[in-house]
Amino acid sequence: MSSTCRSGSTSTGLGDDTPSIVAQGWTTPPGGTVVGVSDTASSTALLTDHYELTMLQAALQAGTAHRRSVFELFPRRLPEGRRYGVVAGVGRALEAIERFRFDDEVLGALDAGGVVDEQTLAWLADHTFTGDVWGYPEGEVYLPYSPLVVVEGTFAEAVLLETVLLSIYNHDSAIASAASRMTWAAGGRPCIEMGSRRTHEEAAVAAARAAYVAGFEATSNLAALQRHGIPTTGTSAHSFTLLHDTERDAFTAQVTSLGRGTTLLVDTYDIAEAVRTAVDVAGPELGAVRLDSGDLGLLAHEVRAQLDSLGATGTKIIVTSDLDEYAIAALAAAPVDGYGVGTQLVTGSGHPTSGFVYKLVSREGDDGQMVPVAKRSKDKGSVGGRKYALRHLSADGVAEAEVVGIGTPPRDDGDDRELLVRLVRDGAVVGHEPLSAARERHLTSRDELPLPARMLSKGQPVIPTLHLD
Amino acid sequence: MSSTCRSGSTSTGLGDDTPSIVAQGWTTPPGGTVVGVSDTASSTALLTDHYELTMLQAALQAGTAHRRSVFELFPRRLPEGRRYGVVAGVGRALEAIERFRFDDEVLGALDAGGVVDEQTLAWLADHTFTGDVWGYPEGEVYLPYSPLVVVEGTFAEAVLLETVLLSIYNHDSAIASAASRMTWAAGGRPCIEMGSRRTHEEAAVAAARAAYVAGFEATSNLAALQRHGIPTTGTSAHSFTLLHDTERDAFTAQVTSLGRGTTLLVDTYDIAEAVRTAVDVAGPELGAVRLDSGDLGLLAHEVRAQLDSLGATGTKIIVTSDLDEYAIAALAAAPVDGYGVGTQLVTGSGHPTSGFVYKLVSREGDDGQMVPVAKRSKDKGSVGGRKYALRHLSADGVAEAEVVGIGTPPRDDGDDRELLVRLVRDGAVVGHEPLSAARERHLTSRDELPLPARMLSKGQPVIPTLHLD
Repeated sequence: MSSTCRSGSTSTGLGDDTPSIVAQGWTTPPGGTVVGVSDTASSTALLTDHYELTMLQAALQAGTAHRRSVFELFPRRLPEGRRYGVVAGVGRALEAIERFRFDDEVLGALDAGGVVDEQTLAWLADHTFTGDVWGYPEGEVYLPYSPLVVVEGTFAEAVLLETVLLSIYNHDSAIASAASRMTWAAGGRPCIEMGSRRTHEEAAVAAARAAYVAGFEATSNLAALQRHGIPTTGTSAHSFTLLHDTERDAFTAQVTSLGRGTTLLVDTYDIAEAVRTAVDVAGPELGAVRLDSGDLGLLAHEVRAQLDSLGATGTKIIVTSDLDEYAIAALAAAPVDGYGVGTQLVTGSGHPTSGFVYKLVSREGDDGQMVPVAKRSKDKGSVGGRKYALRHLSADGVAEAEVVGIGTPPRDDGDDRELLVRLVRDGAVVGHEPLSAARERHLTSRDELPLPARMLSKGQPVIPTLHLD
Repeated sequence: MSSTCRSGSTSTGLGDDTPSIVAQGWTTPPGGTVVGVSDTASSTALLTDHYELTMLQAALQAGTAHRRSVFELFPRRLPEGRRYGVVAGVGRALEAIERFRFDDEVLGALDAGGVVDEQTLAWLADHTFTGDVWGYPEGEVYLPYSPLVVVEGTFAEAVLLETVLLSIYNHDSAIASAASRMTWAAGGRPCIEMGSRRTHEEAAVAAARAAYVAGFEATSNLAALQRHGIPTTGTSAHSFTLLHDTERDAFTAQVTSLGRGTTLLVDTYDIAEAVRTAVDVAGPELGAVRLDSGDLGLLAHEVRAQLDSLGATGTKIIVTSDLDEYAIAALAAAPVDGYGVGTQLVTGSGHPTSGFVYKLVSREGDDGQMVPVAKRSKDKGSVGGRKYALRHLSADGVAEAEVVGIGTPPRDDGDDRELLVRLVRDGAVVGHEPLSAARERHLTSRDELPLPARMLSKGQPVIPTLHLD
């Protein structure tokens, strides 16, 4: 098992005693070096709503574009019934900020489309973000009104980042929030992300990354290996069995090429016959069998008994059919060694987006002083003023409240954790970190939550959010 | 209104008499030429599951990789309660096939990750797809078991395309299927896609494209303008009002820069006061006002009455808060001139993925003859044999059945429409078409469906799928 595939904590159930399907050849760890290719080297500036640019144009003309401003990205609530959420996408957002530039190609498109006037195009050509960004670090737990990102700069430079920041945070955090419930439900058993085919091809890569942050062991997605160094996994589909004249031919071909430690898919025809053939072909050293249909709990018991009777006591059982956190929890008593999760992971298990918004909360007035601002609409209100945030912890390290200071930082009781870290300073990204850090942070942060956080039933946020003026 | 913003049919309610918010300056049509930049020039080969490559390796070693094979991409069912689906992503899938190449960067990542052996890497280095692809053209309606894509080639080349084809079709068709219900519910009133911030930043561009195929008039997404020539739209957010010392200052700034035809957002503070100020600032030539919160039906009536009383009888009312097809339908009797749709569009209105699968249905046997193949699993069965498909139409042009021939084409009754068109011939993409063609096709295809197709309540597929051996 490579070090990037290992959680930093043994108290989480994902530590040293994790049944290793990696060692069984089901997972290929990355070969040491991460290639670190970003999803594209091109500009992110047009991953943006039209109105960000028309607002810029109007504010430039009115002379208000350069007022100092504070925007905040936050959730008004958790998805219905969820007890906590997980912040993901921070690293990707920082890359997007670095690549947010109006190069000739971008300017050409805006010009051809008649989106903004010449003055605005000229301003954009010279634009780079020079402000500051604070944010919750990746993997951290969040609650309603957690100020996940605080952007300080001119109105012009801060408003332009709205759409792309929301896209990244809303997507990646939705996946991580679902993934965290799944890995918690799985206890010490590894979860593998395999939902690429069920979501947009680029969202798939981000989903693999977010799931990894929230405790998944590996992914099927090869671009996630290339770009993020996430271990990948997989052996064969039903088509491989059907390609061959017999199931035995298929198993022999796979074991010959991929070794006895491979995982054989045993539900193309008759499962009991396939398990017999699998052990006959690979011997009791067979790495694992995979079940992808039927009553997985029942089948796991039957297959375990059969494998044991054939002497394949070390052969693992991997299940992969339409799993979500509830199905994973329901299989806790079944002899299952690993879960492959697809559709429900990449669609956020019923909540494919996080509902984060990005609001102006403070801006410079005529007199140069900062003025808290908020709209008054009843159903979509926001709280004016720059926010600060602490996770208030009990003396024995249990989270008790999300404390949000408005305008000034709340007092730290000594055991509390500061939640906002500096991500961008004077336009320079300073918040990059290895993905393993986010992964470890998530386990630590989740473990701090009171016990009801782990309940899958619908409930209230597990700790309250306290706003302090 | 630019020609790309126009549906080709006046029978659909989206024709010439569409209330034009474009003319009001709310929409910027593209400036004639489409820049036509693809989402990235890089290879799509790693947007792929690990197991596609390990299957390839095992099949290469076993000598079965070059067996002629037929894979099909199809839905086993529609999302629960939906009466039809809409095919989207075809053009993007064809681009992905063209860019599916194992260049040095890709091979380096596979090598570093230890994904496959040297022999397989060597094979991949020389690989280009040389097979044939047929498929439903973009915008076409589909039903359960419609054979949306038929890929013919060797096992090796056809299996490799599985993941990326499924990703694109599953995502884009989910969006288009939801979008079609929304534009139908909206009748002749324009729908604007503005959900970019609620989904992955690249999925957002694809969602804008899919929505446009299914009848949306425009999008907020600037990359969709750049890449696909889709008209974009938008004027201002609440932050623009809050930036200024007064709402009047904000409206004045916007009207000065964007003209009287602009759309002013009137729900930051008090709506009635904002409408008064808006008309005072812009005059009765004000293009539109936008409502983004509250009881939109009630507010639309109040605002319409107020606008009329102020002489702004031509000023449109645009609504944009948490709309889906049901909310749009519920506003049919309200004086609303356009709908901006976000979250529910980009998340497929409850069904963010289409559930398409990609299955081997036929392959060459030892004797060189093609053999139909299917797995036997009860809950995930497939039908062996290459499929052909017709939409059976009555003499007066109403769709009556999806006729799927197994192994041989079904007989055409004269009024029927062939559904599978050639997309790739001997490895060369031949199926590219302008997006406007898909848009027109969708309206035609949807109009052919029996009347219950339009019902938003849960129901069965509106026409049956008949399998003919």
